[in-house]
Amino acid sequence: MIKITLPDGAVREYEQGVSAFDVAKSISEGLARKVLAANINGEVRDAHRPIDTDTALKLLTWDDADGKATFWHSSAHLMAEAVEAGFPGVKFWVGPAVEKGFYYDMDLGDRKITEEDLLQLEKKMNELAKQKNQYIRKAVPKAEAIQYFTEKEDEYKLDLLSGLTDGEITFYTQGGFTDLCRGPHIPNTGFIKAIKLTSIAGAYWKGDEKNKQLTRIYGVTFPSQAELDEYVLMLEEAKKRDHRKLGKEMGIFTFDDQVGQGLVLWMPNGTIIIEELENLAKKTEQAAGYKRVVTPHIAKESLYLTSGHLPYYEDSMYPPMELDGTKYYLRAMNCPHHHKIFDAEQRSYKDMPLRLAEYGTCYRYEQSGELFGLMRVRCLHMNDAHIYCTREQFAQEFRAVNELYVNYFKIFGIEKYVMRLSLHDPEKLGKKYVNEPELWLETEDMVRQVLIESNIPYIEVKDEGAFYGPKIDVQIWSAIGREFTLATNQVDFAQGKSFNLGFTNQHNELETPLIIHRAPLGTHERFIGFLLEHYAGKFPTWLAPLQVKILPISDKFMDYANTILQELKNADIRVEIDDRSEKIGKKIRDTEMAKVPYMLVIGEKEMNEGKVAIRRQGKGDLGAKSIAEFLADISAEIKNRAAE
Amino acid sequence: MIKITLPDGAVREYEQGVSAFDVAKSISEGLARKVLAANINGEVRDAHRPIDTDTALKLLTWDDADGKATFWHSSAHLMAEAVEAGFPGVKFWVGPAVEKGFYYDMDLGDRKITEEDLLQLEKKMNELAKQKNQYIRKAVPKAEAIQYFTEKEDEYKLDLLSGLTDGEITFYTQGGFTDLCRGPHIPNTGFIKAIKLTSIAGAYWKGDEKNKQLTRIYGVTFPSQAELDEYVLMLEEAKKRDHRKLGKEMGIFTFDDQVGQGLVLWMPNGTIIIEELENLAKKTEQAAGYKRVVTPHIAKESLYLTSGHLPYYEDSMYPPMELDGTKYYLRAMNCPHHHKIFDAEQRSYKDMPLRLAEYGTCYRYEQSGELFGLMRVRCLHMNDAHIYCTREQFAQEFRAVNELYVNYFKIFGIEKYVMRLSLHDPEKLGKKYVNEPELWLETEDMVRQVLIESNIPYIEVKDEGAFYGPKIDVQIWSAIGREFTLATNQVDFAQGKSFNLGFTNQHNELETPLIIHRAPLGTHERFIGFLLEHYAGKFPTWLAPLQVKILPISDKFMDYANTILQELKNADIRVEIDDRSEKIGKKIRDTEMAKVPYMLVIGEKEMNEGKVAIRRQGKGDLGAKSIAEFLADISAEIKNRAAE
Repeated sequence: MIKITLPDGAVREYEQGVSAFDVAKSISEGLARKVLAANINGEVRDAHRPIDTDTALKLLTWDDADGKATFWHSSAHLMAEAVEAGFPGVKFWVGPAVEKGFYYDMDLGDRKITEEDLLQLEKKMNELAKQKNQYIRKAVPKAEAIQYFTEKEDEYKLDLLSGLTDGEITFYTQGGFTDLCRGPHIPNTGFIKAIKLTSIAGAYWKGDEKNKQLTRIYGVTFPSQAELDEYVLMLEEAKKRDHRKLGKEMGIFTFDDQVGQGLVLWMPNGTIIIEELENLAKKTEQAAGYKRVVTPHIAKESLYLTSGHLPYYEDSMYPPMELDGTKYYLRAMNCPHHHKIFDAEQRSYKDMPLRLAEYGTCYRYEQSGELFGLMRVRCLHMNDAHIYCTREQFAQEFRAVNELYVNYFKIFGIEKYVMRLSLHDPEKLGKKYVNEPELWLETEDMVRQVLIESNIPYIEVKDEGAFYGPKIDVQIWSAIGREFTLATNQVDFAQGKSFNLGFTNQHNELETPLIIHRAPLGTHERFIGFLLEHYAGKFPTWLAPLQVKILPISDKFMDYANTILQELKNADIRVEIDDRSEKIGKKIRDTEMAKVPYMLVIGEKEMNEGKVAIRRQGKGDLGAKSIAEFLADISAEIKNRAAE
Repeated sequence: MIKITLPDGAVREYEQGVSAFDVAKSISEGLARKVLAANINGEVRDAHRPIDTDTALKLLTWDDADGKATFWHSSAHLMAEAVEAGFPGVKFWVGPAVEKGFYYDMDLGDRKITEEDLLQLEKKMNELAKQKNQYIRKAVPKAEAIQYFTEKEDEYKLDLLSGLTDGEITFYTQGGFTDLCRGPHIPNTGFIKAIKLTSIAGAYWKGDEKNKQLTRIYGVTFPSQAELDEYVLMLEEAKKRDHRKLGKEMGIFTFDDQVGQGLVLWMPNGTIIIEELENLAKKTEQAAGYKRVVTPHIAKESLYLTSGHLPYYEDSMYPPMELDGTKYYLRAMNCPHHHKIFDAEQRSYKDMPLRLAEYGTCYRYEQSGELFGLMRVRCLHMNDAHIYCTREQFAQEFRAVNELYVNYFKIFGIEKYVMRLSLHDPEKLGKKYVNEPELWLETEDMVRQVLIESNIPYIEVKDEGAFYGPKIDVQIWSAIGREFTLATNQVDFAQGKSFNLGFTNQHNELETPLIIHRAPLGTHERFIGFLLEHYAGKFPTWLAPLQVKILPISDKFMDYANTILQELKNADIRVEIDDRSEKIGKKIRDTEMAKVPYMLVIGEKEMNEGKVAIRRQGKGDLGAKSIAEFLADISAEIKNRAAE
C-alpha cells in the first residue's frame, strides 16, 4: 500500500500502481469525469499513469491552469492529426499550449493553408474528438525514435531528438497520429467539446529569420460549447473595446515615426486621465505617509553595475551614451535612483519606514515585434515607490501595500483579481536566488500570512521569485473577462547590501533596511490600456476627459449656456458647449458617441426656470434640475470617484 | 556743421570734430561729469573722440550696461598699472569686463600673488585713480606695435598682435601704463572711486589646459564708496543665501557621483516645492485655456534633423544611442514633440489657438566646468508650452503670455524685472535669420506694441533674435538685488514650415500656424535656485516643505498635539510634531532655524482652552487662537499663495 496525500492534507492509502484517475474515482465519479491530468509531487503527469510510491497528489481539472494547459496541448495534437489527414506529408515542429489556447508550427512544403481550410480542419477535429481516442504514452529507445522519423523523412523531429537523452524519450499516439512528446496529455480526445481555429501566421523555424518560414495555426478549445460561445463573444466585445481603436477615436494617445516605435505621445485627453490617476496615487500615498521625489532618467553605468542590472539586464535597456569617457544609460527602473536618495542623508530607526514615491519614467528596449499599443511600449510611466523598513516593520508595511492594491481595485470596479506569490527554490540559493535562507523563509511566511489575513485570493508558485526576494504579481480581469498582469510587489534583501544602505538602529548599530518595491497602478501605459477596455471608453465622471457637454437647442440660449459653462468651470468641471447649428437630436447622438458622461440640454423652459435638462451617458434622460443641484451632485460624484 | 540725433529723436547741430563729451557739456555740466563713453551709430567709443559726420548719439553713463562695461574695462587697465608697479616684468594677456566687474590674466613668472598682495594693489590703484590720469588712445602701425612688445619681451601681446590687421591697431596709455587695446575707455582714472579686488584664480592661456597656467585677478569697481559698500553687503548676504548651502541644509536636492554630474536628485522637500510650482502653473494654464500633454524624452535623429537642432545644436545634446540602426537622442527641448501632437490630428481654424503645455524634462550637455548647483545643470524640468495660432491671434496670445509672466512675478514678490527684446538684423536675413522680412517686422512690431501697452519695462537689442523669430529674455532681480536670467518667450515662423504643420483657415485653405515658445517659470532647477536665494530659504507658507510644527511643552500634551496634527492634516496642511524631550526654548530655536513658517506651542493653558499659541517665523509670538481660527487663517494664506 502507498500513501496519497491530497491538497487538503488528507492522507489515503491505495495499492501500488494506482492512477490519479483511480484516486479521483474513489472520491466520486463526477470528479473522475473531470480529471484532465494530475500534479504528482510537483510534476504534471497523465491522469492514468500508475503511481508507485508515497505521493502528494493534486487532481487537475479545467479550473487549474495546468489542467487547461494540458487540455490545449492535447488539442494541438488533435489539430495535428486533422492537418495530417488533410495535408499528407506535412512535417511538424512544435505545438505548445499558450496563454489562451495553443498553436502548432508546421512545414506544408509548397502548399498553403487558407481561412477556409480552417473550417474544414475544425470539422475534422470535431469528428476525431468524438471518437474519444486515448492519448497513449510509450517510452521509446532513442535509436528506435530516430529510425521512426528518418523513415518519415521528418528533419524537424530529428532535430528535436538530437537534443534528447536516451531513456527519456516518449511518443504519444491518439487515433492515427503519433508524435514525439514528453506529455502530459488528457485521457482522451472526447474531453474536447468545442473547437475554434483562430488564425494562421508565419513563424521562422527556431525564431531565426535566416531559417525557413513555417506555418503556424492558432486555436482554442473548450470542454463545452457554452464556454466557446462566451469566449467568442468576449473576443468580439474586446475588438470593439480595443484600446488602440478607442485611443485614437478619443484622442488619448498617438505614435509618430520620427519619435520612434513604442514611444507614446499622450494627447490632451490622455493626459487628463494620467493626471487624474497621478492625483489619486499622490493623495493615497500622502495619506499613507509616502514622500515624493523626482530623479533623472539617466545614470552612469557604475550605478547599474552596483545594482546588478548590468550586465544581466543589458539587453532590455537602451544602448549607452558615451560622454567624456563615461557610459550613461536611460534607466529601465527607478530603484537605484531612490536608493541614492535614501543614502543622501544619515538615517536612523526614527526615519524608518521611509517610503519614497515617484511617477518615474523608465525606458526599456522591447523587440519591435513585441510592441503592442499601450500594452508593450518602450517608455513607461510607473507609479513606483520603494519602502525602506526594518524587519520588525516589514509585515505591517507589506500589509498596507496590499490593502492599497485592493482599495484601488474597488475604485476601478475590478471585481476579479488574483495575487500570484512567487517563492524561491532552496536548491538554487546562491545561484538563482540571493543566499539568505532564513530571510527567504521569514519573508515568504510573512507575505503568506498577510495574504491569508487580508483574505486576498492568491496562488503560490515555487521557483519564480525575483533574485532578491519573493514577489507578488497581480492579475486582474477586465469587465469582459480578459486577464491582465498589472502590477508587482516585491521584497528585496539584496539591494540594501549592494548599495551599502544603512540606518542606525536603537542599539546604535548599523543595520541594512529591507526594501519593498511596489507599483500598484503599474504603468500609465498598461493601466490606461486596461481601463479603455474595462470601461469601453465610457470612463466614470472623475476620469472622463470631458465631463459635461452643454447642448443649447438653438443660438438663442447661448448666453444661458455660457453662464452655466462658467459656473461649472469655476468648480473645476471639464465642460464644453456644443455651439454647432445642428438639431438637438444630432447633438445628443454625437455626444453619446463621444462618451461624455453628462449632457445638459438647454431650451426655453430650462432657461426660464434656471434649470438644466440632464442626460446621462447610457442612461438617457434624468429630468431637470437647478444648476446648483446638478453642480452639487456631479461634484460629489467626482470627489468620491464614484464608479458611475 | 553736422547733425547729432539724440535718443529722444531731437536733432542738434554741432561743428565737425565735436566730441560726445562736448555734446553732453552743451546740454548740462552735470551730465558731462557723468559721461563714461558714447554709443555712436551703434558702436561704443571714447567720449572724447571727435565726431566727423551726421551721427546718432547716445551718451553712456553708469546707468547703461555699456557704460558699466567701459568703466570696468578701464579698471582692468588701472589694476594692470598697479600690478606692473608692484611686480615689474609681469606680462599681461587679456583683461575684459565681465558681468560684475573685470579680470586680467597675467604671467608673473615665478612669483605668486597672495590675498595680502590684493590689499596692497587696491591701495596702489586708489592712489593712481586719484591722479585722474587720462586714458589716451593712439593708433599704432603694426610694425611699430610689434617692435614695442618685442622689446618688452611680451610674447602674449605679440600673439594677440599676430591676429590683428595693420591700420586697426591702437594703444591706450594711462599714467605709466600702456596696453595694446581697441578700447573704448572712460575719460580718466578719477571716475574710479571705490575698488575691491575679489579673488585670485588660475586660468590656462587661451583656456587650453595644455598651455601654461596664468594668474587671473578678479575685481570690481564703482563710481562711489556707497555703491561698493552696498555691493559687499549684497555679496555677504548672497553667501548666506547660497542655494547650494541652503539646498543641502533644507533637504531640497542632492547630487550623486554614480548618477552623474549636473543631474539633480530632488529630495522630498524639494519635490514638495516642485509640485507646488507645477500646481500653480497647471491651474494658471488651465484657466488660460492650455491643454496638457505628456511626451517621451527621446526621439529619433530624424526628428531633430527636421527641426534643425541637428547638426547645429548637436554639441549641446547628449550623444546618440544606436538602436536597430537608428540613432535616438535625449531631447534638449520639447518643441518637436509638441509639433507632432499638433500634427497628429486634422486642425482647423476652430482649433486655434492650440496651447500645448508640458512640464517637459530636457537633457543638455553642459561642460563639466560650467555646471553650478541648480543654476547650470544637465537635466532640466521646463514649464514649457507652445501656442499655435493664426497671425490675427498672435498679438492677443503674446499679450496674454506677458501678463502671465507679470502675474507670476507678483506672486513671488519679484519687484524688479526687465524684458530684453531681441530683434533681427535685416542684413543677415537668410543667414542668421529665417528669410521672412515682413513677418520679422510685423511680429517685432506686435511684440513691441504689446510691451508698451502692457507697461512692461523692456530694452531692445538688435541682432540677437532667435533664428526663427524675435525673442524676449526675462531678467529678474532677487530680494538682495542679484540678477537672474529666468525665462524666454519666443516667436517662431520657421518650425511650422519645417514640420509641415497646417490648419484649414476660414476660406478652407491650408495655412501654417505661428508658434509661440514660452517658459515663464523657466526650469525648476534655476527657479528653485533663485527662490532659495530670494527667500533666503524662508519660503512663504504655500511653498514651505513643512508648514506647521507643533511644539508640545511636555509629553503630557501629546494627545492634544496629535488631535491638532490630525485636524491640520485633514486640511492638507504639511505638519509635524516635535516630540523630542527637549525644553520648549530649544524646540522653538530649532524650528526657527529649520525655517518652518508656523509653530504652535501647546501647554496646559492651550489644552484647557482648546487653543494654540502661534509663533510666526521671523515675527515671533502672535498670541493664542482656537484651532478653527488658526486653520481658517493659514488655509486662506495658502490658498491665496500669500507672500507671507
